[in-house]
Amino acid sequence: MSRPLRRARAVDVAARAGVSVATVSFVVNGKAEGRVSPATRLRVLDAIAALGYVTDASARALATGRRRQVALLAHDMTNPFTAQVAAGAAAGIAEATEGTGHLLLLLAAGLAEPDVEPVGAATVDGVLINYPGTLPAGRPDLPVVHLDDPAAGGHQVSLDVAVGARELAGHLADLGHRHVLYLDGNRPWSTFVERRAAFAAEFAARVPGAVVADDRCDIDLGSALDLATRRSADWRRSGATVVVAATDVQALGVLAGLHAAGVAVPAQLSVAGFDDIPFAAVSAPPLTTVALPARELGHRGAVLLAGVIEDPDAPVGAPTVLPARLVVRGSTGPPATVTLSA
Amino acid sequence: MSRPLRRARAVDVAARAGVSVATVSFVVNGKAEGRVSPATRLRVLDAIAALGYVTDASARALATGRRRQVALLAHDMTNPFTAQVAAGAAAGIAEATEGTGHLLLLLAAGLAEPDVEPVGAATVDGVLINYPGTLPAGRPDLPVVHLDDPAAGGHQVSLDVAVGARELAGHLADLGHRHVLYLDGNRPWSTFVERRAAFAAEFAARVPGAVVADDRCDIDLGSALDLATRRSADWRRSGATVVVAATDVQALGVLAGLHAAGVAVPAQLSVAGFDDIPFAAVSAPPLTTVALPARELGHRGAVLLAGVIEDPDAPVGAPTVLPARLVVRGSTGPPATVTLSA
Repeated sequence: MSRPLRRARAVDVAARAGVSVATVSFVVNGKAEGRVSPATRLRVLDAIAALGYVTDASARALATGRRRQVALLAHDMTNPFTAQVAAGAAAGIAEATEGTGHLLLLLAAGLAEPDVEPVGAATVDGVLINYPGTLPAGRPDLPVVHLDDPAAGGHQVSLDVAVGARELAGHLADLGHRHVLYLDGNRPWSTFVERRAAFAAEFAARVPGAVVADDRCDIDLGSALDLATRRSADWRRSGATVVVAATDVQALGVLAGLHAAGVAVPAQLSVAGFDDIPFAAVSAPPLTTVALPARELGHRGAVLLAGVIEDPDAPVGAPTVLPARLVVRGSTGPPATVTLSA
Repeated sequence: MSRPLRRARAVDVAARAGVSVATVSFVVNGKAEGRVSPATRLRVLDAIAALGYVTDASARALATGRRRQVALLAHDMTNPFTAQVAAGAAAGIAEATEGTGHLLLLLAAGLAEPDVEPVGAATVDGVLINYPGTLPAGRPDLPVVHLDDPAAGGHQVSLDVAVGARELAGHLADLGHRHVLYLDGNRPWSTFVERRAAFAAEFAARVPGAVVADDRCDIDLGSALDLATRRSADWRRSGATVVVAATDVQALGVLAGLHAAGVAVPAQLSVAGFDDIPFAAVSAPPLTTVALPARELGHRGAVLLAGVIEDPDAPVGAPTVLPARLVVRGSTGPPATVTLSA
């Protein structure tokens, strides 16, 4: 029972099983029910296994152990930062696996938890994780690359968010701000911890009597819009002259909420964010933000993942850290000199 | 050689093939190379086929003919409209196939053509097409649902873009505009043809001596920004007092380009779009646009596709057409009374 040297075809399977090619086709295309008897179907499956017949991607995956898919676990594909990471990852995986046709499976779930079942069910060869803490269960050997999660071990591509946060702190200190409302994302992710810690430390070092107060909300435009509409009077009454948001979608939501509440930006309250999504350049006013290279993050991560899939025993190298830089636009200005009365 | 009534386990495969469970594991996980002889590997594969052993998604797919994946063919996942369609489709496919674990594979390629190889290679059970004209080759029987492509035959979910376009034409006519620069997408898609035709017909019916001039560019923010920066003086010199873009990303790019060129919106030139992506509400100025329900488009399409996958012979019903409506914001106003001098 030796395997033929040339690749088996459906006609070979049919000959071995003593059936027609049409019968083989019914079986491999899942159309045997009502057309092919169970006994005949088993003969065909025996022949398929014996000949190593590769019918399509599923059969190829079974024969080779390769699924030719990688997954990107992400938070919310409607966040333009995530969409850019995904676009970069799709380009990177196509480039790095040229000829093998690896595909990107996007696992994102809006504000809910992503469904990681396909990772556990072994439909992928590796995973890019841009959703810290979402570890695929039950597959400890699965190749994984962490994106923008500086606290993660293992293979990772990160962003120099601390450098960007310090530049932003310096910019606001130079403008004369002393009291910041820091609007964090309501996820305990290391990239957010690092952004806030670096910003607060630099701001405190630059500004005598600096205050960095906290608020937090979901990482989307609507949640920040609602929060800013409700809370902006409190923020200003407390003495805050600038809102720094952990992400641009939150910062843009704050801009919309302040507009709804009749608060002028930056005359009465400055606003800044992190990411530099394309829409940050066309907001009202255009947003001062720490630019993070989302597309390159996804691209580099995918190329790294392809390498780990090829050689799972490759040692973990030093993390790739991509640069961040401050982009100053119209949403930040000198602090308002008059505090809003209650 | 009958199949056991209970589901076969790895231990059953091992017993039939006369090998250890570890050997079965090596074979099904693609780690046989260097560990399991070719003859033994074949015995294991024979046993797998004979027992109907279901190891993981790939094997299950081979046994059932189901891949438990559907694809969304789309233009550019960084366009928030597409991202919303994808989010809706992911939710819809999860909801409609509860318990079967269908996943959404996103095939989008920025401004290039998407790679439809996985569709041809049968890694999916069906396809949502939001990229008109991209037909998967070689699988004429594959379940397909067309999204926002009114000229497509077969199963489809569409948007009432004509109603929205007429509302926009009426709004601009009421403001006193007579000369429109219509910035189309540079793709010959039926939804764009329908938007433009309905707009132009309604505008002509409302405004004596109406002029609707054309320009076009790629469907992204940067392309429209470049075009508006270069061409806005020509547009105004020709007499246009408003730019209507076929998509919001183009309209937002025009806003940024007009800002760069020093053209005041809407005082010197009004701007409007189609889609109502979330960022249209926070642009400078906020964008007047025809709201199209992207998330519901994806959701309804996925539910329909799941039904077609379940029953491929189901008759094609009347197309679902989701409503569009005009949202008036600050980017449209009365026409400038003084024409720019050359």
